[in-house]
Amino acid sequence: MGDGNDIITGNAAIGQSGGPTAVINQSLIGCVELIKHATGVKKILGMHHGVTGLFNQDFIEMQDIPQDRLDRIAETPSAALGSSRVKPDESYGERIFESLRDNDIRYFFYIGGNDSSDTCRIVNDYAKAQNYEMRCFHIPKTIDNDLKCNDHTPGYGSAAKFVACSFIGDNLDNRALPGIKINVLMGRHAGFLTAASVLARQNPEDGPHLIYVPEAVFDPDKFLTDVDRIYKEQGRCLIAVSEGIHDQEGEAMAVKLAEQQGHAVERDDHGNVQLSGSGALGDFLAQHIKLNLGKDLRVRADTFGYMQRCFAGCVSPTDRVEARAAGRKAAELALAGEREGSIAIQRPSDEPYTIEYNMVKLEDVAAKTRLLPEEFIEDDNNISDSFKKYVRPIVGPLPTVELLRVRGGAD
Amino acid sequence: MGDGNDIITGNAAIGQSGGPTAVINQSLIGCVELIKHATGVKKILGMHHGVTGLFNQDFIEMQDIPQDRLDRIAETPSAALGSSRVKPDESYGERIFESLRDNDIRYFFYIGGNDSSDTCRIVNDYAKAQNYEMRCFHIPKTIDNDLKCNDHTPGYGSAAKFVACSFIGDNLDNRALPGIKINVLMGRHAGFLTAASVLARQNPEDGPHLIYVPEAVFDPDKFLTDVDRIYKEQGRCLIAVSEGIHDQEGEAMAVKLAEQQGHAVERDDHGNVQLSGSGALGDFLAQHIKLNLGKDLRVRADTFGYMQRCFAGCVSPTDRVEARAAGRKAAELALAGEREGSIAIQRPSDEPYTIEYNMVKLEDVAAKTRLLPEEFIEDDNNISDSFKKYVRPIVGPLPTVELLRVRGGAD
Repeated sequence: MGDGNDIITGNAAIGQSGGPTAVINQSLIGCVELIKHATGVKKILGMHHGVTGLFNQDFIEMQDIPQDRLDRIAETPSAALGSSRVKPDESYGERIFESLRDNDIRYFFYIGGNDSSDTCRIVNDYAKAQNYEMRCFHIPKTIDNDLKCNDHTPGYGSAAKFVACSFIGDNLDNRALPGIKINVLMGRHAGFLTAASVLARQNPEDGPHLIYVPEAVFDPDKFLTDVDRIYKEQGRCLIAVSEGIHDQEGEAMAVKLAEQQGHAVERDDHGNVQLSGSGALGDFLAQHIKLNLGKDLRVRADTFGYMQRCFAGCVSPTDRVEARAAGRKAAELALAGEREGSIAIQRPSDEPYTIEYNMVKLEDVAAKTRLLPEEFIEDDNNISDSFKKYVRPIVGPLPTVELLRVRGGAD
Repeated sequence: MGDGNDIITGNAAIGQSGGPTAVINQSLIGCVELIKHATGVKKILGMHHGVTGLFNQDFIEMQDIPQDRLDRIAETPSAALGSSRVKPDESYGERIFESLRDNDIRYFFYIGGNDSSDTCRIVNDYAKAQNYEMRCFHIPKTIDNDLKCNDHTPGYGSAAKFVACSFIGDNLDNRALPGIKINVLMGRHAGFLTAASVLARQNPEDGPHLIYVPEAVFDPDKFLTDVDRIYKEQGRCLIAVSEGIHDQEGEAMAVKLAEQQGHAVERDDHGNVQLSGSGALGDFLAQHIKLNLGKDLRVRADTFGYMQRCFAGCVSPTDRVEARAAGRKAAELALAGEREGSIAIQRPSDEPYTIEYNMVKLEDVAAKTRLLPEEFIEDDNNISDSFKKYVRPIVGPLPTVELLRVRGGAD
């Protein structure tokens, strides 16, 4: 903590950045509701569309919004201020500094993932380079759950709950009308969201029966063996796949299968491929199964898409509370005289589930990616029980299912 | 009603059929919990995978399941008995009759949509042809909401709630990171589910801004004009599309756009096309926009897929209650001496919302499709307020949103 004598007077700016989540407004309001009562703070300037709003001096004033409206905003999914994927380069420096100075911004808060924490670091560096005194804090947010130094991140718990509820339903759907079903989930580099599908397993025969994350190498031949085995055992097979699965050389599986199946794949000068189809990976995997295991198999693929991050009415109670607390914590630290940092959610104890909101260095989080730890991955096609234990309190209670005629059991 | 002296003694059989829903087990349990107390009924034979279970004499006995377990089954999404898409042809007749007779089935209940009600009619005809005395009732179920004689059908309310909650989130997502977003929803012939996306409109600027259902002819040129206008007005555009949209000649839009965009479309001898891609329509529409309105536009497409029908934890309270009541009503009628029929949910009054469970003729429902009435469709690209009024009580309460900076309003 700072020495407490270090309180500066001026305005506060706050922004939201990156892909929205179901609880990113909780963090916004957590920060606003605390800082609005601070004596040093005059206006609270909500940046319209993140750093773009700062750059263009396009602000939504928030200091006079009554608490009941703040509470309703907090409960609303997605980023109420608007979001942004802009990363400021050199050309932004001057205008960002002007905006900070012209608007007397002395408290700066930025809610987002690893790219956004890097933006926060960059803004902080501009201010520092001009000896401009400012408090600068990053507040974590990402459904990918891939921030370094964090046990987990706000937004993940609710997206994971959405994935779990989808799979609970889809497992029973697949049980009622048996076949092979592939669901493709968000996660280019980190498999946390895909791993959450494991929560749908409540009974021994429940799917997902196979789970593939980007942290494990995906072998299309081994995949066929896996699917064939489960299908022969169970008469059905439910599969969870991260969009980012790739081969040994790191080539995206959608591209590899597209080429294998004789589709023209266009590459740019850097060798990068833009696959147009939103459902491409799922369709190629389904085709891969049909071509190799039998064209008459009932194989279906769904790609969950944007629904995962902002679905209304499927919020984890833990996530809701923690997102708010993370926002409050950033305000607290800034008012206590700390100069800069990133809020990290850490878990000193599993039982009882205990959370601390600690301050870590911006550069320890900025532009870095945390991956699913090895102990959570089993045999390249499954997720461990230790992950289930890890994720359960983050997601909270889930609907329970009651089956008729469990395989190997009585009716 | 029958004369009440007409009670027959024997076993009851019950089956579930077609695509599962979030509340089809409510109807199952509604029927079972009532009929299990009837003096005339000995065993309750749950058909494993619908008419296939009847055909193969594969039954799950349900008469001894305690009420608390029945209640848990009722709350579980999808078809607990397993479902089926089999439609019995001539070759089934003999074996179906044998199964009815061998198992002394005197009460027959079949839960499903229009195809399933036709199966129910066929089974009934087999029994009648042999002068086999049996009560035979169809219990309605379909997320498509396309059964004749019904105001709405069990399963629709919950699927519509899922669609509404998705669009509430996706509208805010699209507002935070503006662009053009297309969501493709289930509904080959009937647009009721797609129409439910209109419930996401809580504020004047909320999407979906355009809604296309199969009941209206889809004109790809008019579509571009619509999208361009909204995008210029709002800086974004959220679009709901039924999978079944087609041109004037009835050709599926996915096929038409695929050909327009130079993809090879394979047709069988009957001229039918099998499009492999699960996300094909969405991708073709996105491509259509980019090719014509600008390749640098941010255009995204999601296809909601199976999630719509069985998502766990997003059940309409009305739907839950009505699905149960429809199952109970079928049992009541059978025990009261009625011989055959289909339960129809009818609404004698809008305010207060009042529901009756009436008996209609099997042949009035079987294999027929109800479409979205004309008064619910506006200008071929929108859904009317009268539909909103119709659908609201069926879906029940939805999460409310609070915006910052509404267009044209104050912050």
